[in-house]
Amino acid sequence: MKKIGILTSGGDAPGMNACIRAAVRTALLDNIEIVGIRRGYSGLIAGDIISLDRSSVHNIVHLGGTILETSRSPEFMTVEGRRKAIDILKREGIDGLILIGGNGTFRGGVELSKESDIPIIGIPGTIDNDLYGTDYTIGFDSAINCAIQAIDRIRDTAQSHERLFFVEVMGHHTGFIALNCSIAGGAEELLIPEDPMDTDELCRRLSASFARGKKSAIVVVAETDKPGWSFHLARDVQDKIAYESKVCVLGHIQRGGSPSARDRILGSLFGARAVRALQKGADGCVIGVIHGVIQYTPMPDTWKKKKPLHQDLMELRVLLSE
Amino acid sequence: MKKIGILTSGGDAPGMNACIRAAVRTALLDNIEIVGIRRGYSGLIAGDIISLDRSSVHNIVHLGGTILETSRSPEFMTVEGRRKAIDILKREGIDGLILIGGNGTFRGGVELSKESDIPIIGIPGTIDNDLYGTDYTIGFDSAINCAIQAIDRIRDTAQSHERLFFVEVMGHHTGFIALNCSIAGGAEELLIPEDPMDTDELCRRLSASFARGKKSAIVVVAETDKPGWSFHLARDVQDKIAYESKVCVLGHIQRGGSPSARDRILGSLFGARAVRALQKGADGCVIGVIHGVIQYTPMPDTWKKKKPLHQDLMELRVLLSE
Amino acid sequence: MKKIGILTSGGDAPGMNACIRAAVRTALLDNIEIVGIRRGYSGLIAGDIISLDRSSVHNIVHLGGTILETSRSPEFMTVEGRRKAIDILKREGIDGLILIGGNGTFRGGVELSKESDIPIIGIPGTIDNDLYGTDYTIGFDSAINCAIQAIDRIRDTAQSHERLFFVEVMGHHTGFIALNCSIAGGAEELLIPEDPMDTDELCRRLSASFARGKKSAIVVVAETDKPGWSFHLARDVQDKIAYESKVCVLGHIQRGGSPSARDRILGSLFGARAVRALQKGADGCVIGVIHGVIQYTPMPDTWKKKKPLHQDLMELRVLLSE
Amino acid sequence: MKKIGILTSGGDAPGMNACIRAAVRTALLDNIEIVGIRRGYSGLIAGDIISLDRSSVHNIVHLGGTILETSRSPEFMTVEGRRKAIDILKREGIDGLILIGGNGTFRGGVELSKESDIPIIGIPGTIDNDLYGTDYTIGFDSAINCAIQAIDRIRDTAQSHERLFFVEVMGHHTGFIALNCSIAGGAEELLIPEDPMDTDELCRRLSASFARGKKSAIVVVAETDKPGWSFHLARDVQDKIAYESKVCVLGHIQRGGSPSARDRILGSLFGARAVRALQKGADGCVIGVIHGVIQYTPMPDTWKKKKPLHQDLMELRVLLSE
Repeated sequence: MKKIGILTSGGDAPGMNACIRAAVRTALLDNIEIVGIRRGYSGLIAGDIISLDRSSVHNIVHLGGTILETSRSPEFMTVEGRRKAIDILKREGIDGLILIGGNGTFRGGVELSKESDIPIIGIPGTIDNDLYGTDYTIGFDSAINCAIQAIDRIRDTAQSHERLFFVEVMGHHTGFIALNCSIAGGAEELLIPEDPMDTDELCRRLSASFARGKKSAIVVVAETDKPGWSFHLARDVQDKIAYESKVCVLGHIQRGGSPSARDRILGSLFGARAVRALQKGADGCVIGVIHGVIQYTPMPDTWKKKKPLHQDLMELRVLLSE
Repeated sequence: MKKIGILTSGGDAPGMNACIRAAVRTALLDNIEIVGIRRGYSGLIAGDIISLDRSSVHNIVHLGGTILETSRSPEFMTVEGRRKAIDILKREGIDGLILIGGNGTFRGGVELSKESDIPIIGIPGTIDNDLYGTDYTIGFDSAINCAIQAIDRIRDTAQSHERLFFVEVMGHHTGFIALNCSIAGGAEELLIPEDPMDTDELCRRLSASFARGKKSAIVVVAETDKPGWSFHLARDVQDKIAYESKVCVLGHIQRGGSPSARDRILGSLFGARAVRALQKGADGCVIGVIHGVIQYTPMPDTWKKKKPLHQDLMELRVLLSE
Repeated sequence: MKKIGILTSGGDAPGMNACIRAAVRTALLDNIEIVGIRRGYSGLIAGDIISLDRSSVHNIVHLGGTILETSRSPEFMTVEGRRKAIDILKREGIDGLILIGGNGTFRGGVELSKESDIPIIGIPGTIDNDLYGTDYTIGFDSAINCAIQAIDRIRDTAQSHERLFFVEVMGHHTGFIALNCSIAGGAEELLIPEDPMDTDELCRRLSASFARGKKSAIVVVAETDKPGWSFHLARDVQDKIAYESKVCVLGHIQRGGSPSARDRILGSLFGARAVRALQKGADGCVIGVIHGVIQYTPMPDTWKKKKPLHQDLMELRVLLSE
Repeated sequence: MKKIGILTSGGDAPGMNACIRAAVRTALLDNIEIVGIRRGYSGLIAGDIISLDRSSVHNIVHLGGTILETSRSPEFMTVEGRRKAIDILKREGIDGLILIGGNGTFRGGVELSKESDIPIIGIPGTIDNDLYGTDYTIGFDSAINCAIQAIDRIRDTAQSHERLFFVEVMGHHTGFIALNCSIAGGAEELLIPEDPMDTDELCRRLSASFARGKKSAIVVVAETDKPGWSFHLARDVQDKIAYESKVCVLGHIQRGGSPSARDRILGSLFGARAVRALQKGADGCVIGVIHGVIQYTPMPDTWKKKKPLHQDLMELRVLLSE
């Protein structure tokens, strides 16, 4: 291997910079050239490529976002788009590619793999943690730490008032963030796609809780594909149980901020190992950590197989909120 | 003066506990008994009163919310309600009353003053900073610090993507929080009640900014009396200028959290001075800080007169966003 | 099992309250009485015991420290002291004991086990992470997050100046905190007991780094048994390589603060499982998480066996700092 | 005025970037060219000058440190050094100079003024707040917020244990930081140059406090010119009153980190006004805010006159700690 290209694609996640930094330093130590492809697949198609050396990744380990920027590229979803991309990769002499991102990123990677012979390795970077093949993705720990800080703040005011709070956190199809921050934040109720609860049931549970003497309650809600839907939900609940409701929608706050220690270390480990794995012949797989051990999973499994919510945390949540 | 009562009313604000602590310590040092009236005017009517000593206020200076809790009391808005309150105050031998809160709190205080002869002093505690008679209210500095941390986090992701972000901050009738955090957060646009901008004008400005090369923009929006309205606004703007929009509604996150240094110091200063002012005969006024100096303003002025946004900050914002 | 006692002992660690809360809620759900023994073994000997119900552990999940307080008890190290403790346990009808703490706590627990027939289970709670039998202890993740925030702040000023910074972090006999925060904080050099480096070698490495063009460097130092020794080290280095040196000693800052999401979840999981394990007959063991799975280790192993630093992180650090 | 130069000198302070940003934007709006002189006076002598446009100061308002970097320049203290500097300024056509820094910076500025006819204006940027001519300097509010967060963390552990904590904060000749954070942090004792207390008196006060039932105490100590001296002090006190003592030395942690809202706004205001003042003919003065109003003070006054600690805060502290 002589020259590795690295890109970040899809939604950015805290820890991606630590990952890029570790990949660059490992490659240079191994005497491999490494270049950064800017703005994900869009930048690849456009040939927006920069060389990376030790100083390029100096003082970035603590930064949120990604220094390589990211985008979603409809053009890359076409054969023509990928054709351009492969031409660029050939022209640049890139003989190894590292993709940091989520499902969409890896789908693109699999198509690229079919149409070229350049070895590709994926690194799971998404705050949602919804990728099969790894217990944790880069950015997840930062996102739940961000969310619990918000919940902690609401707790202060919840104790002073008699109120019902809805906190909407990220999570498109999955409740990983919501589940984890409901436990860590000590929330009373949880609404996630994997374990739906209708408004009547939610009202019944809240009323029972208030009847038992609780003065306030925090409901953690996964945003699903309807960001802002907590406002409607809160109005419904308020109408039904006549308890003043307040809403907070965290949105992209959860995506930013300085990465947590865990995400920096996980990102660094993934970045270093990905470079080594490419050299050892890895291709078409995604690195991950399963039960504390680094593992490699075929790229298509990351979206074909569904990663279930941790069963022990689901049980723990029920136990803590009863 | 032999016995002072202290209560917090209306919305809670970070720094109220520092204020309570300073009032208690000053009273005790001056050999005055001091009691806490819990849950604002509701607790006063119900006679929910606790004695306060040095240990009651130990280790609270850093806590958000208020250890005395707060509420809104419709009953206190009636003559009968206030009659009960005055009976309780007489029965308890309270001959001085400290009210920590905002407009609503002081309106109640003025009515109470008319119907009793107990000296009353107000302390401005509200994150909104919308009180005439003081440049700063307890909680305002903490609220804007909370809001800029959210904006900073969004900035990370804004730099990685091409996007338009709406951050809805608190501010019912006034834009103090929004104005200050748009300057401190480096936001591109600002929507406040004092300086309204219609959607077309906002779109025009954003389009011009993107045309000049900016890739992303952050719009700070005061929630006014329609919390969540940013979702509608974002949809309108996205429809008009075809730029992907994301929304974050901070809500009560801004109300909680550990108070900033400034709010702790301001709260402590107000608490200590209010006790001393009561002893010197102050009655029916609100303490405040104007141009760095402690001042006393007649209670009715705090809502009859309108505090304008700082003119120099309005000019500064225009200058920085041009 | 009818009545469980729970105590925290030794140094406090963020996440202990989440652990207590989960233990209490699980016990109550299982219809077991649970009491809190205050101030560790000292409180046990003194019979300082409080009953715990759901409301006792309401709103504590986010608090640093431990609501049960802690202490070190020389008296418990004597047979007489433990005799008193056992009498108290018998008198109270406690037939199951949960000990949250570190090495010293478990040594006491083993002695207690030998002299009584009360089942005992340990939960690893120490920021140092230096316990065999678990990959992570409660408090470790919070401590490294605290330390990297300090390093990040120093990084700001390091970039503005030409300077050498020493950051002394906790770690008596082990370098877990120092190793993890040197990776996550992007520190240039690391001084830990497991991998000592003499001052000459440190100076040589720093000089080489400055010669290569670096303007500043951050050295992470484990405090070992000489808190504050970084001041001496910094003076030595400054004398030798004539580079202005600054020192920061984090000390007990790392022990406090609101626990990280991970420590809250880990603490909750340990607390709930410990109660269940006691019911199933566990005795004389410490709960832990090894490779993502809950495991039980005989108490004496936790200090007789030495937990090595993670080998993959040691390698990663070398790679990142070369 | 056609071309303004701006530099940061001495210790960096959070909020300097907000100040630079506002100066640049104001100058550009006023059709004045503006250049950044890197590394303070050293960079000026070396001609290390960069042009600044709107994009140079994009996304820096929230960053700690200074994008222009800073240094201390012995050479500038010589006539020859300043001669070179003046030549550079002439060569570059700089006809207005903005100096952001503290005492040392302004001393240099006054010498430069004597030897050239280039108008110079100073902006007070130092975390120590020890400058006559302004109630607040850029960076002070961030520094005390940093320090109280450290104290809050120690409070968690102080409540769990029986211990005495020494927290050493910045402050060379003055106790501004120490005084403010002792009030805001609720510290028991305070050691500052303006109000010295010998070890015997400190021991007497601490013993009296413990005798009254307090279990722990936090002593805030200004570092003075002996950083790390708290370790010696703590040992002395521990020897005398036999109470376990722990030390934390914040050091440069206080200098870094993202600036507080107040420092960003103050910095922005100073930056914008300095540009306007230069255009109106200001020369040889330092901008400041006194009792909420922008004021200009002759540069030499900033070090010849001593700014006293706020008297009301000194009184407040005594009152709160009695």
